[in-house]
Amino acid sequence: MFLSKLMAASEAQKLINSCLEKSRIEEIPLEEANQRVIAQEITSYLNSPPFNRSAMDGYAIVAEDSFGHSENNPFQLKLVGNILAGQKSGHKLKPGEAIKIATGAPIPSGASAVVMEEYTHEEGDTITVETSVVPGENISPAGEDFKQGDQVLKDGQLLGPAELAIIASAGYDRVKVCKKPKIAVIITGSELVMPKRDIEGPEVINSNHFTIKSMVESCLSTPDMFHSIDNAQQVEQLFKKLLNEYDALITTGGTAISKGDVVVDVAQKLGEVPIHGVSLRPGKPFGFAQIQGKPVFMLSGFPVAAMVQFDVFVREALLKMQGLTRDLLVIHKKAARKIPSTLGRTDYIRAKIEGPLVRPLKIKGSGIIKSMVDSDSYIIIPENLEGIEEGEECQVLPYHSLKA
Amino acid sequence: MFLSKLMAASEAQKLINSCLEKSRIEEIPLEEANQRVIAQEITSYLNSPPFNRSAMDGYAIVAEDSFGHSENNPFQLKLVGNILAGQKSGHKLKPGEAIKIATGAPIPSGASAVVMEEYTHEEGDTITVETSVVPGENISPAGEDFKQGDQVLKDGQLLGPAELAIIASAGYDRVKVCKKPKIAVIITGSELVMPKRDIEGPEVINSNHFTIKSMVESCLSTPDMFHSIDNAQQVEQLFKKLLNEYDALITTGGTAISKGDVVVDVAQKLGEVPIHGVSLRPGKPFGFAQIQGKPVFMLSGFPVAAMVQFDVFVREALLKMQGLTRDLLVIHKKAARKIPSTLGRTDYIRAKIEGPLVRPLKIKGSGIIKSMVDSDSYIIIPENLEGIEEGEECQVLPYHSLKA
Repeated sequence: MFLSKLMAASEAQKLINSCLEKSRIEEIPLEEANQRVIAQEITSYLNSPPFNRSAMDGYAIVAEDSFGHSENNPFQLKLVGNILAGQKSGHKLKPGEAIKIATGAPIPSGASAVVMEEYTHEEGDTITVETSVVPGENISPAGEDFKQGDQVLKDGQLLGPAELAIIASAGYDRVKVCKKPKIAVIITGSELVMPKRDIEGPEVINSNHFTIKSMVESCLSTPDMFHSIDNAQQVEQLFKKLLNEYDALITTGGTAISKGDVVVDVAQKLGEVPIHGVSLRPGKPFGFAQIQGKPVFMLSGFPVAAMVQFDVFVREALLKMQGLTRDLLVIHKKAARKIPSTLGRTDYIRAKIEGPLVRPLKIKGSGIIKSMVDSDSYIIIPENLEGIEEGEECQVLPYHSLKA
Repeated sequence: MFLSKLMAASEAQKLINSCLEKSRIEEIPLEEANQRVIAQEITSYLNSPPFNRSAMDGYAIVAEDSFGHSENNPFQLKLVGNILAGQKSGHKLKPGEAIKIATGAPIPSGASAVVMEEYTHEEGDTITVETSVVPGENISPAGEDFKQGDQVLKDGQLLGPAELAIIASAGYDRVKVCKKPKIAVIITGSELVMPKRDIEGPEVINSNHFTIKSMVESCLSTPDMFHSIDNAQQVEQLFKKLLNEYDALITTGGTAISKGDVVVDVAQKLGEVPIHGVSLRPGKPFGFAQIQGKPVFMLSGFPVAAMVQFDVFVREALLKMQGLTRDLLVIHKKAARKIPSTLGRTDYIRAKIEGPLVRPLKIKGSGIIKSMVDSDSYIIIPENLEGIEEGEECQVLPYHSLKA
C-alpha cells in the first residue's frame, strides 16, 4: 500500500516539525532546573562580580607606591588590616599602607591594585614587596563578568552547570521552564511478554518496552508505558483514552501493510496520517499521525528499526516540544569499507568508530539487537548519495551525542 | 607553598585513579536500570529470536514450489491458514500449500521460506505467486541475534536503550548494577549567599552550589549539598561527619595558599594530601586528599576553575567508582587563531566550534561564568605542546560529550 509512495526522510522530518506545539511553561526552583529547557530570558538583577574584588591572595596597595620596584629593588609598606572573603574593610587605604586580602574579597577604598602574596614578605606589621603592579592589577572590577540589566541567557536553552551558575549569579532562585512532555508509549504485539527465563510457543520478549521508555527519558520527557494486543478495538480504546491525558503518543508495531497491522488503521480512523512509509533504512514502516491536534509517532515493531525511527523522527520532536532546537554534532570519518546505498533513500548504518576510520557492522535483519550494543554510532548516508566508497569521508553521528 | 611543586595534570589523574574504590553492587528491576552501570555479565537464558520467525508479511511456503517461477511465469498455491504474530500454527505445511503469515510470527512446520505479500495475489483460497524464493528466504532463524548461553553483555557498561533491550531479550527482569556514589559537596566561603535580587556588602552569590550539584548529577551520582564559612573548626566538623556517611567529598574554595584557605589544612590534619597544586590552566589550586580511605576532591572557589577541575579530575573518577571507564570523544578542529601555552602545563581553553574551525573565546579571569555559557567545548593543549598555531589541528572536547 504505502510502498508506492515512500516519503523522503528529510521531508518527513520537516512535516513533523511543522505539526508540533510547544508545551506549557511552569516556574520551578532553580535547585530543580538542571536538564530543563528555559522558557524565559534572564536579565541580570546584579553586577557580577558585585564589587571590585581581589583576584589573588595578596596585599591591596596604592599601585603608585610600587612603581619602579622589583626583586632587586624592594620597598616596604605598613600592614593596616586583613580582609578575608565575606568581609569588608571600613579603612580607606593611604599611600604607604597595605591591607592583606584574600581571593574574592572586596578591594578596600583607596587601594588600586593587589600584589600577589608570592612577591612579598610579612614581618610584624611591615610588608616587603619585590615587584611593581599597574593600577587595576589582580583586581576583578564589578560587573566584569556581566552587569545589572544585561541579558545573560536567552530562552530555549538546555540548563546545565554553566547556565545554572549564571542564572544564580544574576539573582534568580526560580526560573520558568517548559513542562516536560508527558508521553504515552503503546507497545503493540499479541506475542509480547515481559522478560522471563522460559518462554513458550509464539511468545517474544517485549524489549521495546525498555528501549522506547529509556529513549523517551533521554529526551527529557516522561514516558508512561502501555501494552496492547494486535486488536483494533483495544488499540482504538487506548488511543482515545491516552490522547486526552498525554502530550504525544508513541506506538510500536502494527505499521506494516498486512491485515494484522492495526495501528495505522486506527490512526486513520481517528485523525490524519500524513506519513506512512518513509525512504529510510532501516525503518521504512514509519507512520505519523495528528489526532486531536496531538502528534502520534508510529514506529516499527522491530527493535532496531524502532530505535532508528525514534532517532530520526521522534527525538528532536520531543525536544522541540519543550522549546529546544539543537544542531547534532555530526563528525566526519573515513569509511573502513564500501557502503552501497540507493539514491533517494537515507541510510542509518550501525557502525563503530576506530580512530580516523568508521567501520559499518555486518548485519542482516533489522531485528538484530546485538548490533546496536556492538556499535557506537550511525553512519548517515543522505538521500543524495548512492553510497560511500572505501576510504571516503562520511557523516558519523555518535550515539552518545544524541542524548540531551 | 605549592607553587614550587605543581603536579602535571596527567600525573594527578593517574594518582587519583589509583586511589578509587568501586562502589557496592545492588540488584534492581530492569525497569529502573536506564543510565546505570551494569555489574554482572549477561549470559542469555534464551535464543533470540526464540523460534524461526517470518521477517516479512507474506506467505510461508515450501521453497521448492517456487523454483523457476517469476512475474512472467507465476504459480498457484492453496491457502490453508493464517498465522498472526503471537499465534502458532499446528498445521504441517505440504508442497502446494501456503499459510499467510505476519512479520514476527513463527514459521509453521514444513515451510522453508516466506514470499513477500507484494509478489502475490490472494483470491479465495488460491494464492498466485510471481517470484521464486530460496530456502530460508525472509526467515529469521532462531538464535540469529544471539543464542541461549551466549554472553551478550560484559560488566562495566552504561545501560541505555540497546543494552536494556538485549538484557530483556536474554530473559532478565532484574539486573545487578553498581550503587550510585553518594557525594557530599561542601561549598566553603563566608561571603556566599543563595540567589537573591539585592545583595549587600561583601556578599557573593553561591553559584558553585548549582554548578557542582548538576555536574555530580551528570556523573550518575547523588549529591547532597552543604555550606561552610571559612572556619577550620566548622570545616573539620563537617568533614568528620560526612566522611562517615558518603562515598566521596567534593569541596570548593579554600585551596589556595593564603591564611584564609582552610580546606587543605583540614584535609592535611585528617588524612593524606598527595596533590595540592596542579599544572593546569585554569584550575591550578586543586587538591586531592585521602581520608579514611575516601577520596576528597578540593576544587577552587572560582566557578570556572572549579568546573574545569571537575571535568579534568572528578568526572571520570565518579564514573570509575561505579565501574565505568570510557574514552572521551576528542575531535579535531583547526584553531581559528594562535593559542599560546607553556610546556608542562595542560590548558583547557573555552572555545566554540565553527564548522571545521574551533575558536578560543577571549577571556580574562577564571571567574567569568559567561564564558562557560558562550562556549560549547574545550580546546585541550596537552603538556607537551607550547601552544597551537593559527590553522593548526587541535584537540577539542565538546562539553556535550562529557555527560554520561
